[in-house]
Amino acid sequence: MIRERGVKKVRIAGMGRALAGRKLYFGDQVRYRLLPGQTILDLGVEAAYQALRNAGMKIEDMDCIVCAMATPLQAIPCNAALFHERMAKGLSIPAIDINTTCTSFISAVDIFSCLVDIGRYEHVLILSGDTASAALNSGQKESYELFSDGAAACVLTRAGENDSSGILYSRQETWSEGVHDTEIRGGCGMMPVFCMDEGNREDYYFDMKGHRILKLCARRLPKFVDRCLKEAQISREEIHLVIPHQASRALGVIMPKLGFSKDKYIDRVAQYGNMVSASVPFALCEAEEMGWVKHGDLVLLMGTAAGLTVNFLLMRF
Amino acid sequence: MIRERGVKKVRIAGMGRALAGRKLYFGDQVRYRLLPGQTILDLGVEAAYQALRNAGMKIEDMDCIVCAMATPLQAIPCNAALFHERMAKGLSIPAIDINTTCTSFISAVDIFSCLVDIGRYEHVLILSGDTASAALNSGQKESYELFSDGAAACVLTRAGENDSSGILYSRQETWSEGVHDTEIRGGCGMMPVFCMDEGNREDYYFDMKGHRILKLCARRLPKFVDRCLKEAQISREEIHLVIPHQASRALGVIMPKLGFSKDKYIDRVAQYGNMVSASVPFALCEAEEMGWVKHGDLVLLMGTAAGLTVNFLLMRF
Repeated sequence: MIRERGVKKVRIAGMGRALAGRKLYFGDQVRYRLLPGQTILDLGVEAAYQALRNAGMKIEDMDCIVCAMATPLQAIPCNAALFHERMAKGLSIPAIDINTTCTSFISAVDIFSCLVDIGRYEHVLILSGDTASAALNSGQKESYELFSDGAAACVLTRAGENDSSGILYSRQETWSEGVHDTEIRGGCGMMPVFCMDEGNREDYYFDMKGHRILKLCARRLPKFVDRCLKEAQISREEIHLVIPHQASRALGVIMPKLGFSKDKYIDRVAQYGNMVSASVPFALCEAEEMGWVKHGDLVLLMGTAAGLTVNFLLMRF
Repeated sequence: MIRERGVKKVRIAGMGRALAGRKLYFGDQVRYRLLPGQTILDLGVEAAYQALRNAGMKIEDMDCIVCAMATPLQAIPCNAALFHERMAKGLSIPAIDINTTCTSFISAVDIFSCLVDIGRYEHVLILSGDTASAALNSGQKESYELFSDGAAACVLTRAGENDSSGILYSRQETWSEGVHDTEIRGGCGMMPVFCMDEGNREDYYFDMKGHRILKLCARRLPKFVDRCLKEAQISREEIHLVIPHQASRALGVIMPKLGFSKDKYIDRVAQYGNMVSASVPFALCEAEEMGWVKHGDLVLLMGTAAGLTVNFLLMRF
């Protein structure tokens, strides 16, 4: 088998996913939120063990635990250390967080496919998931009715010599003219917890300016996608399935503008909403379970994240 | 020149550092805290431009902006996107956060030296810094009098073919039996901002159990360092200078136990305190400015971070 030029020889050996326990309906849209006492740690651990089982591996086999999440579980320590305690206490596996907000999973696969390819690590457990419900503003209907709490995980591992799996191409860009279009201004270093009062309470909630994001995406995303496809020397027709970040119900407007017809991409916004960093791996996991994507298929992971960051990653599954 | 086996061919092309504007004294210990209106964004930008000037480069030359920080500036978006707005608005440079708490800088150099070595990126701007003062508990003297607010930055770039600079060896481990010895439990996903009340207010402050950390380090750190030196096939005598994380005044107790005498490592805890993620790059930057470390010297970056995470990275400067 010819090794594609520049291909990172990795494969996803197993995936898992978990939804929060409380089911809500907003019209025809289904959302999931954490039950009292339930945390993203619980969901992440469930998804991770499922990924390990599907990979036929144990936590002891992992060389690195990576949390690819948009938001912290605690301000200190990093998320991966908290998962380490739940899954790998007593082991010495390094724990690292990678964050590019909603596309953190794609960035983590991008970065760790390089590290696995060169042998820095061999088996990497990547977890995604965010407590979206912790900061939703009931006064902002658009975002309040959009998000779900969920988690997803995968085991990324070296691909065998005769395995066609790998990362063919990846590109990330950040367009910070959109940095304040999706944010939680308060609660951390810029506006500490102890500064919250009745006058600035709104700043501690999630704030999304959907219309501005759409405008920025409409202006820059088509050129970005065209450039990536050209550099990757891949046509839209060759791509078996696109897994976009499930940003919002506008997915059905954006994707055709990028040249992807409805049968070419996953849109599960009505079923699950936006699960922040978990959206992409959750959709990929479901696609594999449902048989929509199979070993050897060319899959495109892509998305826009708060920042505004855009990711494009072509993977032979 | 023989290329050392497995060496990542990178060099630090320039560094910068910045201290918060308010100077405090606790006995013979000097600390720095943010002035009203001053933020870690301000300090980070100052350090980053200094690093770029020292590298003889411009922000336009960077292929990636990496924030290697322990704490978020906002819960959303990631820190690197916020720095992107201040330094690179209008450009498309990708912005990524890497977090392993206090040793985030070492982890970022570890990871991005691999990405630069294989050509995924050529020039990377790495920024560190944390708003330690945002969560200090005046009731916990040990930690209240230990931390400073500061920032540091470096430009990591490909080393030329005839340049001996590079990363010779790196190892990271996480020992999560110490995960609750250094933490801020409240304010994020596990215990949201809006759940703070007078009964749990303490959970939203930084909490450090210094004695427990020291015990864990005393038990596991010597073996870890011995293992790393053995794997790297480097003796303590060959190392020109050790830049440890400036964790606390216990540095003078720990380092000799690891086999490093006082003239072999940087201890600036009395002058600057613990600057969280900025400690290691700040000390490295100062060491270069003072002429304590020169091109070609073998330098060891190491430290323990909340998690508990340990990092060991050997660099030919």
